[in-house]
Amino acid sequence: MATNADAGREFFTTRTVGDALAQFRPQRRTLTETVPVVDALGRVPAEPVTAPHALPGFARSTVDGYAVRAGDTYGVSEGLPGYLQVTGAVLMGTEPKVTVGPGTAVSMPTGGVLPPGADAVVMIEYTQQAMTGTIEVVRAVAPGEGVVRADEDAAPGAELIRAGHPLRAQDLGMLSAAGITSLAVQARPKVTIFSTGDEVVPPETSALRPGQVRDATATALAALVAEAGGEPAGGGIVPDDGAALEAALRAALPASDLIVISAGSSVGTRDETAGAVARLGPPGIWCHGLAIKPGKPTLLAECCGVPVIGLPGNPRSALVVFRLLGMPLIRLLGGCSTPPPEPIVRVKLARDLPSATGRLDVVQVRVADGVAIPVFGVSALLSVLTTADGFLIIPEDATGLDAGTEVDVTLYR
Amino acid sequence: MATNADAGREFFTTRTVGDALAQFRPQRRTLTETVPVVDALGRVPAEPVTAPHALPGFARSTVDGYAVRAGDTYGVSEGLPGYLQVTGAVLMGTEPKVTVGPGTAVSMPTGGVLPPGADAVVMIEYTQQAMTGTIEVVRAVAPGEGVVRADEDAAPGAELIRAGHPLRAQDLGMLSAAGITSLAVQARPKVTIFSTGDEVVPPETSALRPGQVRDATATALAALVAEAGGEPAGGGIVPDDGAALEAALRAALPASDLIVISAGSSVGTRDETAGAVARLGPPGIWCHGLAIKPGKPTLLAECCGVPVIGLPGNPRSALVVFRLLGMPLIRLLGGCSTPPPEPIVRVKLARDLPSATGRLDVVQVRVADGVAIPVFGVSALLSVLTTADGFLIIPEDATGLDAGTEVDVTLYR
Repeated sequence: MATNADAGREFFTTRTVGDALAQFRPQRRTLTETVPVVDALGRVPAEPVTAPHALPGFARSTVDGYAVRAGDTYGVSEGLPGYLQVTGAVLMGTEPKVTVGPGTAVSMPTGGVLPPGADAVVMIEYTQQAMTGTIEVVRAVAPGEGVVRADEDAAPGAELIRAGHPLRAQDLGMLSAAGITSLAVQARPKVTIFSTGDEVVPPETSALRPGQVRDATATALAALVAEAGGEPAGGGIVPDDGAALEAALRAALPASDLIVISAGSSVGTRDETAGAVARLGPPGIWCHGLAIKPGKPTLLAECCGVPVIGLPGNPRSALVVFRLLGMPLIRLLGGCSTPPPEPIVRVKLARDLPSATGRLDVVQVRVADGVAIPVFGVSALLSVLTTADGFLIIPEDATGLDAGTEVDVTLYR
Repeated sequence: MATNADAGREFFTTRTVGDALAQFRPQRRTLTETVPVVDALGRVPAEPVTAPHALPGFARSTVDGYAVRAGDTYGVSEGLPGYLQVTGAVLMGTEPKVTVGPGTAVSMPTGGVLPPGADAVVMIEYTQQAMTGTIEVVRAVAPGEGVVRADEDAAPGAELIRAGHPLRAQDLGMLSAAGITSLAVQARPKVTIFSTGDEVVPPETSALRPGQVRDATATALAALVAEAGGEPAGGGIVPDDGAALEAALRAALPASDLIVISAGSSVGTRDETAGAVARLGPPGIWCHGLAIKPGKPTLLAECCGVPVIGLPGNPRSALVVFRLLGMPLIRLLGGCSTPPPEPIVRVKLARDLPSATGRLDVVQVRVADGVAIPVFGVSALLSVLTTADGFLIIPEDATGLDAGTEVDVTLYR
């Protein structure tokens, strides 16, 4: 950990993105809360959920046909059909009122309860009415054929869903099948977003004075927070004043699982941010400076148990860094051990891309016809991001990529 | 279009999935509504949005340094520095109070307004204090260097976001930068979900009678509707009675952009569903039967301007079909011309997969170490879906896939 001694001055404890992901792992986790299953899409179960009883709960026909004793059908064929006496019919959603004895069959709908005595269901296609009350069977069935067992979807106590994996539509269906209508999930991490910089004004400002810019970053960050399963809270715009920033951060600590500061872009603002974070509490700043382009002036800290991310002032750099480090951090805080898969396409690079070794480069690209076309522009330009379909990464150990190289592009959703 | 003549009887107008996607294209679109930008992540803009003024709106420094006339730096070097008189400083967020004349420089923060007279900014790294009020410049800059133009992020009237493309975090940021705090989007398609089948009871039913099953499909379908950008509404469970179903569907028509019926699994229930849909109104049933496994007993219809999907009774079949046909249909109704990209991985198939030609097969798989392992089980089993990480498709013209074949698996999120 860096000490607070340098607080208030420009300093860099530069780390790599890989180190940050592997080593900056705050212990903090959100509490659990109970939510209705119908509202739980994407939520992270706090514990495994097991089946309270067997599912479907009864041996069930998977076809329309006749419940039989499989042995009664052995050896039958088109040329030598077997004959069974139909002694009744099973109705959907009700208990069978008949038993299947030797030489008899009971009419079955798909999904009906297998009657006592039967061990298989012959599809209606392999039967025909011989005379009133009797069917011909032209194909043999094995025991269990045309039937799901009472516990085939889940045995009692079987794990229906795992902890830590965001719930998908089918998981909610499975919980409903088991009669589970609410469950314990991790609370969404509360993420307080501050913007700093004397030039920054709220988006709703209609007329800008010369030199003013509207706060684009906070809006975009809030969306990324939500996408990662967090709950964004607007901390507002704080003037370029160390004491004011420190006070605002301190006030946000108790209600935040993560604090994000979109710092002003000037060196003075960055100094104020680092100083205010350093004074906030132990253990303090973990790194100030990341070996990434764009995004070098990134700060990672933990203060009084709350992780803090200080983002670069340029909106584009801020969003690049937050996607790479902030979103995984939100998932970690929210107990998500398996992040949802990202859409990644393998395409050919349209042109040479230079890169300095020792630094991870994030390059915005358009993708068309299997080719990635880099979108260039200084990191102050947000239009580079809105024009891009996704991004590719040039790893630290590379000195660039040649045109025609196959690259993996992570697509924006 | 199929006629209503066969209504009430089991009949099949079988189509392929490809035909259904290409040809079943109802004209209906949702209305537009205005939403705040901060709530617009994933929403579909109803029209393009253009920049009301230039962005950033003023020529802006991209570095900390000195605003200069580029011509004043030509020919300078470490060995032969140039000297410029510092006549002032630009402060963040304010209009410059000084002009840069020949032989002078003005101190600049990153993001500051370029003062009149200057056409470039020299990075502070390439300057040093020579004496009070004078700097040495050791590297030449070209006009425009260290600066973004007033309209470099967007010219007035430039398209900031396109219609029909779901909004991403950076798009919301760009709108905020332009001072746009609300926009017109397509309303979320309202999707009414009905379940039928005398055996089906609500998920909250604690004790099941023999033969009863809880409604798993409606819960899962509602989640898929939300994932596709729709607004699910619970139509409830309708008994296996054609007149009751028809009445329920008719009552739902005015408030629905799409009606989904999770039909009971027995042939009788399927008949009732087809009959009720056929009687609902013109043009009626488009197909009853889809060349897909699982999911053959799928019904597609349009009645009085509202598309209707009749899904198979087995929860797994229902969810497979809804993912392939229902979700794209919701996006179509909601004006989404570019669906968000899906996470797809290319992996090796672990074993042979047989398939009948002329039918599209959807195979659930687990994915581990670059290998897709099929998850088998009859279509009545929901656990096949909860166990799977994703699915692969065996196209209509294939007779199966050999072990070791490279396949594209669409991963569940």
